[in-house]
Amino acid sequence: MGESSPVGIRRIHHVAFAHSDDTVVRSLGEVLGLACAVEEEGPGFVERMFRADSSFVQTLEATGPGVIDDFLARRGPALHHVAFEVADIDRAVAWLSGEGVRLVDSTARPGGGGTRVAFIHPSAFGGLLVELVEESRRKTA
Amino acid sequence: MGESSPVGIRRIHHVAFAHSDDTVVRSLGEVLGLACAVEEEGPGFVERMFRADSSFVQTLEATGPGVIDDFLARRGPALHHVAFEVADIDRAVAWLSGEGVRLVDSTARPGGGGTRVAFIHPSAFGGLLVELVEESRRKTA
Repeated sequence: MGESSPVGIRRIHHVAFAHSDDTVVRSLGEVLGLACAVEEEGPGFVERMFRADSSFVQTLEATGPGVIDDFLARRGPALHHVAFEVADIDRAVAWLSGEGVRLVDSTARPGGGGTRVAFIHPSAFGGLLVELVEESRRKTA
Repeated sequence: MGESSPVGIRRIHHVAFAHSDDTVVRSLGEVLGLACAVEEEGPGFVERMFRADSSFVQTLEATGPGVIDDFLARRGPALHHVAFEVADIDRAVAWLSGEGVRLVDSTARPGGGGTRVAFIHPSAFGGLLVELVEESRRKTA
């Protein structure tokens, strides 16, 4: 591994915060002046993306049973994960697997806003949950 | 408040993760290929900044009693705060105070790497700890 890592991090894509009341959503807009660029429903949560230059703050509001509700029950409202944009998520995931890095997603899957995503298991980063995001659509052969 | 917020967020400056073992530091370098740009000592912790384009992942490693050790005792290794770069931190803090937004720091104070920083109280963001960072040195009159 080391400097030869071919994961190819481009930038922080987003940092995600899990919550159940609307204080954070209101304050990101009214206090910080960030605009909500996208709002989408996931399984048991509503996801909102607040743009800050080339990155986003993602809010994950629990609306029913699911992973966000489970997280809130354990931790309360808290930062949930950090996501990095990569150029080629298939290449990144294949390399991580080959190196024995524990993954939540063994292959990339569809994420919000037409992205493709994969989560690395937090045990690989000492408790930090890392998501990789490819912005572009699936390459055609 | 609303769209008239003069806080003037430029970008995500960093997202911070508190920890006590070195797994996250090793993995940010070896797995993701991020370089540690700065390492500085704080009161009871070592702070490292891993560059990802124009933002950083900041790791806060507890080395003795202090706020990071306290946080780890309550939460375990976890994301700690998100920091935004602003152009004029004195103006931002003055406006937040005037609007009644609860602050941890009532005036800006020196941060790492020659920055000036102020934390907003997490109660203002539903549990999310937000830091404001001004990169440039103090303006002279």
